[in-house]
Amino acid sequence: MTIRTLLACSALLLSACSQTPAPAPEPAETSAPRNIIFMIGDGMGANYLTAYRYFLAEGKQQQIKPTIYDELWTGISSTWPDDQTLVTDSAASATALATGIKTFNGAISVDQQHLPIGTLMQQAKRQGKANGIVASSQVNHATPAAFLAHNKSRRNMDAIADQFFDIRIEGQLVPDVMLGGGLTHFIRDDRNLVAEFQAEGYQYADSWQQLAQLSQAPALALLADGGLPSVLNQEMEAPLQVMTEKALELLSNHPQGFVLMVEGSQIDWCGHANDIACAMAEMHDFARAIQSAKAFVDANPDTLLIITADHETGGLALAADGIYEWRADLIYGVQYTVREITQRMMALEPAELADQWRHWTGLTLDDNQLADVLAVHQQQPELYALLNGYINQATRTGWTTSGHTAADVPVMAYGAGAEQFTGFMDNIDIAKRIMGFIQQSAN
Amino acid sequence: MTIRTLLACSALLLSACSQTPAPAPEPAETSAPRNIIFMIGDGMGANYLTAYRYFLAEGKQQQIKPTIYDELWTGISSTWPDDQTLVTDSAASATALATGIKTFNGAISVDQQHLPIGTLMQQAKRQGKANGIVASSQVNHATPAAFLAHNKSRRNMDAIADQFFDIRIEGQLVPDVMLGGGLTHFIRDDRNLVAEFQAEGYQYADSWQQLAQLSQAPALALLADGGLPSVLNQEMEAPLQVMTEKALELLSNHPQGFVLMVEGSQIDWCGHANDIACAMAEMHDFARAIQSAKAFVDANPDTLLIITADHETGGLALAADGIYEWRADLIYGVQYTVREITQRMMALEPAELADQWRHWTGLTLDDNQLADVLAVHQQQPELYALLNGYINQATRTGWTTSGHTAADVPVMAYGAGAEQFTGFMDNIDIAKRIMGFIQQSAN
Ligand SMILES: [Zn+2]
Ligand SMILES: [Zn+2]
Repeated sequence: MTIRTLLACSALLLSACSQTPAPAPEPAETSAPRNIIFMIGDGMGANYLTAYRYFLAEGKQQQIKPTIYDELWTGISSTWPDDQTLVTDSAASATALATGIKTFNGAISVDQQHLPIGTLMQQAKRQGKANGIVASSQVNHATPAAFLAHNKSRRNMDAIADQFFDIRIEGQLVPDVMLGGGLTHFIRDDRNLVAEFQAEGYQYADSWQQLAQLSQAPALALLADGGLPSVLNQEMEAPLQVMTEKALELLSNHPQGFVLMVEGSQIDWCGHANDIACAMAEMHDFARAIQSAKAFVDANPDTLLIITADHETGGLALAADGIYEWRADLIYGVQYTVREITQRMMALEPAELADQWRHWTGLTLDDNQLADVLAVHQQQPELYALLNGYINQATRTGWTTSGHTAADVPVMAYGAGAEQFTGFMDNIDIAKRIMGFIQQSAN
Repeated sequence: MTIRTLLACSALLLSACSQTPAPAPEPAETSAPRNIIFMIGDGMGANYLTAYRYFLAEGKQQQIKPTIYDELWTGISSTWPDDQTLVTDSAASATALATGIKTFNGAISVDQQHLPIGTLMQQAKRQGKANGIVASSQVNHATPAAFLAHNKSRRNMDAIADQFFDIRIEGQLVPDVMLGGGLTHFIRDDRNLVAEFQAEGYQYADSWQQLAQLSQAPALALLADGGLPSVLNQEMEAPLQVMTEKALELLSNHPQGFVLMVEGSQIDWCGHANDIACAMAEMHDFARAIQSAKAFVDANPDTLLIITADHETGGLALAADGIYEWRADLIYGVQYTVREITQRMMALEPAELADQWRHWTGLTLDDNQLADVLAVHQQQPELYALLNGYINQATRTGWTTSGHTAADVPVMAYGAGAEQFTGFMDNIDIAKRIMGFIQQSAN
């Protein structure tokens, strides 16, 4: 699927979709929001939002309009973990966002002594609220894991999946809705968690067709063995939006309201790969999911929508090498992730390389580039680095790392209680305010 | 001067200086602010604020506290110019901030037809308000120039200086206060603008001692031939703060109020040099100047303090090369800008290089590094690149360009009318709102 196809719905452009905008709900002065939709763009530093704005405008200044991110933008958050690195990983930051307590990198809602820290999903369950998680990664990947499990290492993904079932609050299973990937961690030689959840009354789906059929919570959908396919490499227009709408449908009838966490998991993966077209496609799906969440708030004004990132990935910058331009227009020609293009290039005959590169990216290999490509045609890491470099050079996209950075991240809020999330804050402040709302709304 | 010395006053740490914080002034609901202090950190992208927070904490998470930037932070602004590059230069962005109209890169308050665009300083003068500019660059450098002059090119610095004197509004000279560098553009073989300003009644200073003696507006101080010395390379603790306080003193008695523009000019220069210690020292001086401006607002609540940047410089990122840390602690050991250290290293005997490098930076050259340094000991660009690279590698500081990027920039606001500058905005929106206030306050 090309990115242009993804943009067929221009509903994310404010002026295109908001001719008759719904009035913003009055902030709830005296009562906490009944429902909370907490959305996390993994790795989504501020420059990803800026890039997405110019990407949507196809790089043409005449077409620049505020995006849904811009529209909802209220504050900024620091992300440092509880060590001396200043740079968090997804586990420590998800712990901060899920519990209000900072911990060490790698930790899933445990403290420095490896003792569990209560999460806001557990709190919601204790208070009688429904809760759910949606992710485009495995549902037991670091970010969603920190909302439901406790482990000294994010790598213990089977143990984390076990805890999704095994941890009980007031005798009850905790998650009411889990939608994402990660099937291999739930159906294993040593344990079949899917069967166990089904025995407890959970509806189950392992395909998008079955997802559409889920009719009530509790429910579990495992839509891929690992993470979902990268948005840019598959045919669905907005898989995260589809899951988000289903989760809202399943949770919305709960008498005490709900807390839903939605992660745009793979923005981070594109950032680690320093792959700008990949990142823009994931940002677009996340924006679509936000659009659905915002529509829910408009229909249910006793709902808070809060959106942030766990950290920045890649040190993304929108210009490089001393040149004063960022060529957002060229991103539209890139039809797959660079990893996918690299695989496809390796399967080609040498004579086909130049034409297919042009077809898959809209870019042309000059003679020197073609010679370099031919020299490493069957060496995946070297070929990947070359091809990715060509796209970053052409678009003037800069990256400083294959890892995370200490950048502050955007905070966006809308609906009941949104006024609590303005200006500068720390990541644990976000969790503390949400947990305060959950506490208040139960009183 | 070491950065540690610069930090002797810890007044920028909120908790250290605000035990008994002044109450925030009530927003003026019905009347526009009488005075406007508009501060521009040239090149100051959001990551500069984040870096400064962790720098002030000496990289120790236990010491992290909100800075004055964090405290005042209310919004974010896009910066694209009126062309297809998405990346602005300082002239086009200063024009946007000074006039509310975007133009092409290089333009000083002229439009695409090279026709003048009225500036908010000219508007202030017409409305009977005083106005002033303060800069650590030449006072006729791109950013301050756009508030007072019109030229198709920022490079025509003599012509721009001429306009500071020659342009009249209602028969009056426009600037009431001009403090900064740039003497060589004001006393030239072909014209002596200093004498012309003095003949019109301007007090004049060309030293810091004389600056302190300035007793009333109108006044002109030209404190360096070109830009002021880099903060890190000289002995004054906070030159921009000294100039800001003097400008506020000179302008504060005007019966109709004033508009003051203060530029932290050299944050950008450090960014172009990809020199992190240089940037932190300039950020510190700018923070001190903000502290003085904030104190003025506390004493004069009918004042708006609005702070932003014209663009981001360097693609600064707080981590690099796949490593999950940013070593803010190591920046304290760097005693001069890398340009200054390079000059000093070139003047040394080869045998002195290793010891002096350690003395000037706190870092140690390993055998390979020393061999590389010796190989280019008398070649300035190569030596500079090597030494700068060592500091960036040690601190894990990433940069993507020697130029500007398309990043959004922070917006900070405080005092009367501050509520107008929340959330996402474009750079021209900032100027339009300020110009609206100037218009209203005259009515
Ligand atoms: Zn992450
Ligand atoms: Zn600039």
